[in-house]
Amino acid sequence: MKQDPTPPADALERATAQEFLALPHAALAYIGQDGFPGISRIALGRDAAGVPLTLISSLAPHFAALKAQPNCALMLGEPGPKGDPLTHPRLMLRARASFADAADRPVLRDLWLATHPKAKLYVDFTDFAFVRLVPLGALLNGGFGKARIIEAQDLLVKPQ
Amino acid sequence: MKQDPTPPADALERATAQEFLALPHAALAYIGQDGFPGISRIALGRDAAGVPLTLISSLAPHFAALKAQPNCALMLGEPGPKGDPLTHPRLMLRARASFADAADRPVLRDLWLATHPKAKLYVDFTDFAFVRLVPLGALLNGGFGKARIIEAQDLLVKPQ
Repeated sequence: MKQDPTPPADALERATAQEFLALPHAALAYIGQDGFPGISRIALGRDAAGVPLTLISSLAPHFAALKAQPNCALMLGEPGPKGDPLTHPRLMLRARASFADAADRPVLRDLWLATHPKAKLYVDFTDFAFVRLVPLGALLNGGFGKARIIEAQDLLVKPQ
Repeated sequence: MKQDPTPPADALERATAQEFLALPHAALAYIGQDGFPGISRIALGRDAAGVPLTLISSLAPHFAALKAQPNCALMLGEPGPKGDPLTHPRLMLRARASFADAADRPVLRDLWLATHPKAKLYVDFTDFAFVRLVPLGALLNGGFGKARIIEAQDLLVKPQ
């Protein structure tokens, strides 16, 4: 009998996922307007409800791509310089991008600057938009054969 | 008159791209079999011609995805713990995945182990395949407003 290769996460694994979600940046995978997969580095924060949030320039290729096709995937966690990079844990998240309304902007701006103070140089540029990355589910990978499913409700960033 | 936002790279920028290509791992964006964007960490090496190469388990979600849809994108370069992550340089590469034949495997295996000695634990497992990631072109991003185009012929990894 084959074991389920990706069982649900336990409490410790959900806590690990939460640690990843507190990281200030992520790799974002999206589908480009030409249908080709695209990849970008994004800054990561959260809104008041703990939904992962990013701030994107309209000059970035993923801006128009996410407007046209909001399905995306994020990877959080870096392997660092030592050991086999594939044995270092990381979180892979499926999400749907949702561009914030102008009315939302002042609140998101203040939340963003609290965690990304260097963004004050560009946060008010009119070609930048806040985009929520609403989690659909995730896979926590702790190395070969150690994948765990994290449910969407456990992917909202809890206040620390 | 608007300046071209992504001019071609100069010799120094091409050399920077080469440094990124020598990194042992990358983030891979692909299109999943359900059409949703996927993202994975992959180990990175090169074949004898300098073509970027990876070794993938058939249990990894990107294995079947790349077989069905070989277009993919890679991101190389990590921001590290300090400063604004978006100002740290990184290389975004478009590539086409090509699964290596069994006849190719002994040569690729030896090249791989020379740069990834810890892979000896699994390199000979029959469910692992070598996959070339044939570069189509890249964008070198050195921070806001510093994107440069790198042509495919400059994306083969030169021997050091």
